[in-house]
Amino acid sequence: MTPPLILVSNDDGYHSEGIRVLADALGSLGEVWVVAPDRENSAVSHALTLSRPLRLTQLAERGFAVDGTPTDCVTLGVGQVLKGRTPDLVVSGINFGANMGDDVHYSGTVSAAFEAVILGVPAIAVSQVIWSEFSYAFAGRFARLIATRVLGRGLPPGVLLNVNIPPSRPKGVRFTRLGKRTYGEGVVEDTDPRGRKCYWIGGGDPVWEDIPGTDYAAVGAGYTSITPLQLDMTDRDQLLLLDSEVAAWDLEGS
Amino acid sequence: MTPPLILVSNDDGYHSEGIRVLADALGSLGEVWVVAPDRENSAVSHALTLSRPLRLTQLAERGFAVDGTPTDCVTLGVGQVLKGRTPDLVVSGINFGANMGDDVHYSGTVSAAFEAVILGVPAIAVSQVIWSEFSYAFAGRFARLIATRVLGRGLPPGVLLNVNIPPSRPKGVRFTRLGKRTYGEGVVEDTDPRGRKCYWIGGGDPVWEDIPGTDYAAVGAGYTSITPLQLDMTDRDQLLLLDSEVAAWDLEGS
Repeated sequence: MTPPLILVSNDDGYHSEGIRVLADALGSLGEVWVVAPDRENSAVSHALTLSRPLRLTQLAERGFAVDGTPTDCVTLGVGQVLKGRTPDLVVSGINFGANMGDDVHYSGTVSAAFEAVILGVPAIAVSQVIWSEFSYAFAGRFARLIATRVLGRGLPPGVLLNVNIPPSRPKGVRFTRLGKRTYGEGVVEDTDPRGRKCYWIGGGDPVWEDIPGTDYAAVGAGYTSITPLQLDMTDRDQLLLLDSEVAAWDLEGS
Repeated sequence: MTPPLILVSNDDGYHSEGIRVLADALGSLGEVWVVAPDRENSAVSHALTLSRPLRLTQLAERGFAVDGTPTDCVTLGVGQVLKGRTPDLVVSGINFGANMGDDVHYSGTVSAAFEAVILGVPAIAVSQVIWSEFSYAFAGRFARLIATRVLGRGLPPGVLLNVNIPPSRPKGVRFTRLGKRTYGEGVVEDTDPRGRKCYWIGGGDPVWEDIPGTDYAAVGAGYTSITPLQLDMTDRDQLLLLDSEVAAWDLEGS
């Protein structure tokens, strides 16, 4: 039996500690390739580079840096680096910081995993929550375990697992749904050295709603959180409702 | 009664024709503000600019350009331009080109609308499908109608409407779910003028699966497609399944 083919990416960049820990942890499970951004790409979400060509720089036997986004990396990894061989698994991370709740929409880590799902490859995103002192040791070990399980059991098409590891030794594992956060202050006004106004996004600390069953609640209680996320964002319940209310919406004849 | 407060944004940029048509079409519905990127931002997805401050340039009484992404524009629009007044509606578009199926993950147009939903504001994304000759006239008229309905009826929290207008006069309206597309060729190898290899993403034409009930099928048959999208990407069915299979996953003690 050929060993599983595993592609690793992230959004913190090729030279980050988290991706090193992840690649090392997965090393014994199969043939591991790393294709990651050449620099930090946090909050780039699912951005794809279409306006310019990308560079692929080989930094190790199975290690490449790309001057693009996490989504670019997965696309080039599958479409170019692996030369037509489809990976059995894509693992994205280990991200420096949580990717929970609404924030998964901004996350390059989660988007790299979604890109794999779009390409039909099972995928896991792994993030290390940072609230105090922490160690990647638990995250590396857990990434190896969950990767083993997904390689063995598979995942349904269109689904990825979003894993968040608490800062201190996890008490156990919880399957969760996404939580809700609100930021206290969205925009901070500033003045540049030439006296012109400018604006920073994201001033205040995030405030999480502590709702039972969510990723945030699990991590807050000291557990590792695993949230199944679906590629298809259609709201099926809402679609049924709209269909039943079509007359009231009165949109024909426009 | 104060007129509704409407914020308009897009990903094609402040100077694009589509946003002009949209702002004009919505003008009679209320107080319309435009906050849009200062240049094209296609495929930037939900990217948020956190590493540098943003510039806000006033170009009209109620028109501002931002040197950032569509998500930045909605954040600055609500957090700075409107100075604490919450819009009644955010409309993003009219995008030059379709935003259907898996592609909504890459879309700056759809992400601007999602950012509004995160901020608790009802939102609509409007895209003009371009397959041949087209006119924004139908799209502008329809944007006005659907905006009127959403202002009147509201939308549940966490939901946006993703509208795609066919290239020729629409036969009517269909409520749809997201379709599936596959690209024929993902990566195109190229050589720069100095002889170095580089790689373009997205060579081949997209191939759509013509599945009944999807956005693509509706537009393909000549109808305007409206897909309700949900902010919460949790796969609830998969979550129930995982909870029922927790013993088989055997993830404790890690």
